[in-house]
Amino acid sequence: MVTFARSDTTMTLSEQITSAVRSVIGTNPAALHEPLFEGDEEKLTRECVETGWVSSVGKFVDAFERGLAEYTGASHAIAVTNGTAALHVALVAAGVGRSDEVLVPALTFIGTVNPIAYCGATPHFIDSLPNAPEIDIEALEAYLDGILELRGGSAFNKSTGARLAAILPVHVFGHPVDMDHLADISERYKIPVIEDAAEAMGSTYKGRHAGTFGLLGTLSFNGNKIITTGGGGAVLTNDADLARRIKHLSTTARVAHRMEFIHDMVGYNYRMPNINAALGVAQLRNINNFVLRKRILADRYAAVIEKIPAVRLLREGNDTQSNYWLQTLILDEEIADQRDQVLSALNDAGYGARPVWRLMHTLPMFESSPRMDLSGAEGMAARIVNIPSGPALVQL
Amino acid sequence: MVTFARSDTTMTLSEQITSAVRSVIGTNPAALHEPLFEGDEEKLTRECVETGWVSSVGKFVDAFERGLAEYTGASHAIAVTNGTAALHVALVAAGVGRSDEVLVPALTFIGTVNPIAYCGATPHFIDSLPNAPEIDIEALEAYLDGILELRGGSAFNKSTGARLAAILPVHVFGHPVDMDHLADISERYKIPVIEDAAEAMGSTYKGRHAGTFGLLGTLSFNGNKIITTGGGGAVLTNDADLARRIKHLSTTARVAHRMEFIHDMVGYNYRMPNINAALGVAQLRNINNFVLRKRILADRYAAVIEKIPAVRLLREGNDTQSNYWLQTLILDEEIADQRDQVLSALNDAGYGARPVWRLMHTLPMFESSPRMDLSGAEGMAARIVNIPSGPALVQL
Repeated sequence: MVTFARSDTTMTLSEQITSAVRSVIGTNPAALHEPLFEGDEEKLTRECVETGWVSSVGKFVDAFERGLAEYTGASHAIAVTNGTAALHVALVAAGVGRSDEVLVPALTFIGTVNPIAYCGATPHFIDSLPNAPEIDIEALEAYLDGILELRGGSAFNKSTGARLAAILPVHVFGHPVDMDHLADISERYKIPVIEDAAEAMGSTYKGRHAGTFGLLGTLSFNGNKIITTGGGGAVLTNDADLARRIKHLSTTARVAHRMEFIHDMVGYNYRMPNINAALGVAQLRNINNFVLRKRILADRYAAVIEKIPAVRLLREGNDTQSNYWLQTLILDEEIADQRDQVLSALNDAGYGARPVWRLMHTLPMFESSPRMDLSGAEGMAARIVNIPSGPALVQL
Repeated sequence: MVTFARSDTTMTLSEQITSAVRSVIGTNPAALHEPLFEGDEEKLTRECVETGWVSSVGKFVDAFERGLAEYTGASHAIAVTNGTAALHVALVAAGVGRSDEVLVPALTFIGTVNPIAYCGATPHFIDSLPNAPEIDIEALEAYLDGILELRGGSAFNKSTGARLAAILPVHVFGHPVDMDHLADISERYKIPVIEDAAEAMGSTYKGRHAGTFGLLGTLSFNGNKIITTGGGGAVLTNDADLARRIKHLSTTARVAHRMEFIHDMVGYNYRMPNINAALGVAQLRNINNFVLRKRILADRYAAVIEKIPAVRLLREGNDTQSNYWLQTLILDEEIADQRDQVLSALNDAGYGARPVWRLMHTLPMFESSPRMDLSGAEGMAARIVNIPSGPALVQL
């Protein structure tokens, strides 16, 4: 336990938060997120080297895909080079193309939005809740009522004339959005859902894994995620035709043939290498342990943070179980101006802490993209502080 | 040694070639190409797992990039996820964009041409020599004289109106093209050269490494290449500004900042993970050994193949030193109709053998792309048989 030199109430906000973090994770420096390798990672990667099977075909790719499908409950999982690639190929497979618009949160990582640009489509930004980073589905519903018209079974933006080709919800920091409500909207407005579950491996909504509700869903296994393959991602789907199409698109669209190299469309070189999949197979064996540790960490943080006025830890919503990928402090509006001091104090103390990503609609390449009122996202973005979240911060 | 049941001359062509291959590499099955791990691959990948540094930042990425620059003599090397990604980001950095045309061989792997499509540009196909798979630069020169006009310092296709934004030579099977001649054309016609040296790591032209002549050059470290990182590629350049731009583009165009995530353009998630770079560092330590083995293999194959009438092994051209990535038989025209029998016989005997890639202009997505007369490439494509080429086929 940490002994406070002064009583909590006379400490500055930065001091209180830093002390609270210290009381949970100790005095050692801690990154924002670090992977934990205490299973078969070394053994399985060694096996790749010993057998020579390190590249884009190999048993670990197949095993990882089977393991992902089994763990998430998706019928099909296709492993690719990263979460951005997963989303890109998902959008292509869903038919998103030039001059389409894709509804996407302003509050997300760039990897959600760049694939829309790769397709030649335009992001159409949607707002977050006033008190949580996830999308504000009620506000979205009202907005779509105003801007949208249905023609020939598709939704079009009345003012730009563009087709609204997909809605791309993001389970921000691992917290699933209200998928039932979103499914209603998707059906009513004829806009397919493609879920960005990059941050939500291990999270569920009504007992069902994030990324398995939409037409397609995507995962990420970047080094900062709950499980990692070095770099990696996956597409989930319950649609066998789409699964075949995704696999085809991500393997240079090569047509099966004993010797000939024939390709029947513009494809991508997005296949996950076997050595990365070997890491993934080992990591996946421990995911329940990682989720448990991160949920305990959330409880511990919450217990000390709730004693600090005007600050709260973001907790999972109704009907959801979060993997608590990134632990998230939310400052009340009246102390939002102290966010940067809090961030500096935490980092100065050796604790990896970060504000949320710069909102997408403020980046130069997306400045002129269409959008709804984004005051929810703007309010949230000013008040978020992510704090150390790695599974190793809790010993079981 | 293999004992022939009949004299060579009474054997079919397929039998003669299969026997010749057997006499060089023995009776065990052999893949077309396999990597060889007999150095520090296991040690360095283990170090990644032990330290937790497996992802897109880490000391092996830096070390691999330095090693690539040193080995090739390029001022800068940027490691990315694969050769396709390398070429894509090179084209973007060189300013290739929508409605441009890029001159590219019809005889190449799909990974050369897809990145042109990713840029929204159109491949403009060029021919191969009548007796070697590399591009026919003299025929190209005559062709460009006819179709091209210079305006404002750039070359335009008179008939389509499109800018000819780049020429993309490929060092097919590891054999460097005549870069002096190509440099003349590039300068005269104001078309920058971007070299696809995916197959040519370890090959030189006039003592200088392939991929270091153009504005930009690219490498591949796929599992079938002379050195592998599982999946991987790199961009080479001597231009510091372009190197910075490539690094920026391949790392989501994130602007340097202590904590904030700010991106200033549409970028890509193409950074090579550290665990793959660890493999690369280990492989690179042995590359001279691999090149030597593959050059010895070429000599051995040549010695037996030259006894077979109307068949030859593709040898390195004047002023070049080849890595002999894929050993290549070329059948004379009069026996080209036996190519498929030869391929079947070799594969049936357990030897990985392959025809050349289906020519790019015959694939459905590129059928309507502009092209010069491609009779050289078409003639070559009918006559090529690649045979087992891995470095492990020669013991030093």
